Amino acid sequence: MEKFKQVAIVGGTHGNEFTGAYLIKKFENFPELVKRPSFETRVILANPQAFQANRRYLHKDLNRCFSLEDLNNSLGSSHEQDRARFINKVLGPKGNPQVDFIMDLHSTTANMGLSIVLLDDNPFNIKLASYLTSIQTTVKIYSWIEPEKESCFLNSICDKGFGIEVGPIPQGILQASLFQKTEELIHTILDYLDKYNQGEISQVNHSVSIYQHLKVVDYPKNENGEIEGMIHPQLQGRDYEELKPGDPMFITFDGKTIYYEEESSVYPVFINEAAYYEKGIAMCFTKKKQVSG
Amino acid sequence: MEKFKQVAIVGGTHGNEFTGAYLIKKFENFPELVKRPSFETRVILANPQAFQANRRYLHKDLNRCFSLEDLNNSLGSSHEQDRARFINKVLGPKGNPQVDFIMDLHSTTANMGLSIVLLDDNPFNIKLASYLTSIQTTVKIYSWIEPEKESCFLNSICDKGFGIEVGPIPQGILQASLFQKTEELIHTILDYLDKYNQGEISQVNHSVSIYQHLKVVDYPKNENGEIEGMIHPQLQGRDYEELKPGDPMFITFDGKTIYYEEESSVYPVFINEAAYYEKGIAMCFTKKKQVSG
Repeated sequence: MEKFKQVAIVGGTHGNEFTGAYLIKKFENFPELVKRPSFETRVILANPQAFQANRRYLHKDLNRCFSLEDLNNSLGSSHEQDRARFINKVLGPKGNPQVDFIMDLHSTTANMGLSIVLLDDNPFNIKLASYLTSIQTTVKIYSWIEPEKESCFLNSICDKGFGIEVGPIPQGILQASLFQKTEELIHTILDYLDKYNQGEISQVNHSVSIYQHLKVVDYPKNENGEIEGMIHPQLQGRDYEELKPGDPMFITFDGKTIYYEEESSVYPVFINEAAYYEKGIAMCFTKKKQVSG
Repeated sequence: MEKFKQVAIVGGTHGNEFTGAYLIKKFENFPELVKRPSFETRVILANPQAFQANRRYLHKDLNRCFSLEDLNNSLGSSHEQDRARFINKVLGPKGNPQVDFIMDLHSTTANMGLSIVLLDDNPFNIKLASYLTSIQTTVKIYSWIEPEKESCFLNSICDKGFGIEVGPIPQGILQASLFQKTEELIHTILDYLDKYNQGEISQVNHSVSIYQHLKVVDYPKNENGEIEGMIHPQLQGRDYEELKPGDPMFITFDGKTIYYEEESSVYPVFINEAAYYEKGIAMCFTKKKQVSG
């Protein structure tokens, strides 16, 4: 059994997602909080300049800059491409990293509670995520793994680890209750990794629900590409709930309801996420599946 | 009795407050919605460039650019100062405006529901605001009038009119239910102005609660000016509720509670407003008073 020697907690990958950024600042001020006997913990504020500017990013979404091509190409650099290469240098290199586990802290305006965002289906990740849902039953697992596609998220540096989303929370603010819940989850993860190193993790598997990414879904738009509707009030806030054929999805500005018309039910997530308006994305569809983890 | 001939609806004064900005776009597309028989209605997207960039402002808060000194000074211009002078040209000039009434649409991450923000205590404004609270009892009236201080808000162009805040809603998104409630309020106001012009408004006064601005309150900060605490979970979302001496206000990152320690109760508003983090402002204190309107 290989042990965890280096664990990284990353926040502020998106500069206006304050929960993660301020947790990192807290851990920088009180490093003993994230210390565990059996491994070293490193904390990184991923995009301090974007945090300072209170923006998701300055030039390019940092959490889309971790493809091998981008990391290995030093030409045509943006601020975030430079920053991705720096992070890849201190935590990576991608595929053969110095750290053994990365948790990357995000927040969302969608009603996603505490969500584990799987970007690699390494069995350890699924087992740990499954454990977290057993400890805290409101935790959900969203698998954003797209087959045949290289992940360009920060987490892709290391096969073990995942993103953590917390919401609903506006960009650019802190909410104490969600801050505390996120911090508790981090402590639970660090304790688990420490117990794993001590050989104290049970090998029994449990069945767990995973919400598997299917596709992104756009807002209704006019011929100029401008959105012409909103999430329907009956769908707003209902992340991880079943959307059945015939259920309302959008209401247009002139009051028409647009219904979900595909053949089988889906489970939307990232419903009304602020950061996705610039791409015109209204939500992501997932399917719910049971796996053993 | 002087009649209203020109009424202005302004939105997107802050570019990332989508409710107002998209209502303006809707009214531009469906102008018949805001037409009334007895006056002309003009709609203005106040800061299209900031809306395009999904930012509160590009260089300077537009809603702080309407002092007479700024409007009359063409030197040292920022984008928003130019834009303020343009708006002052088409709706103003401040103090002797072409329009007789301005409503300026804003949104907030604070739990302020639908709030009328009085910037001028013209008796007509108080009577109309009082009427709105009688129609829709959840509407609150916040008087942000600071004695002996010139208002530099957009609304200061015209003595009749007020700001409208809606929340809680994150910056950069739309929520259909709040969009619809704001639109209904606008229609109620337009109908009232039309009835006033027809002489159909009763002269009877009612007693109404007004929350009078007292002061802004900062977050706890360290010696570098960085915030070191959050709104206490027991205060979060409790805008317009009584804060009594001894009640918790903040929780610091290291877990200490900071209590409200002044002598008499206050009624906080703009609790945890995202836009105020850059100034380190946590909330505004008001006192509740009864007036006849």
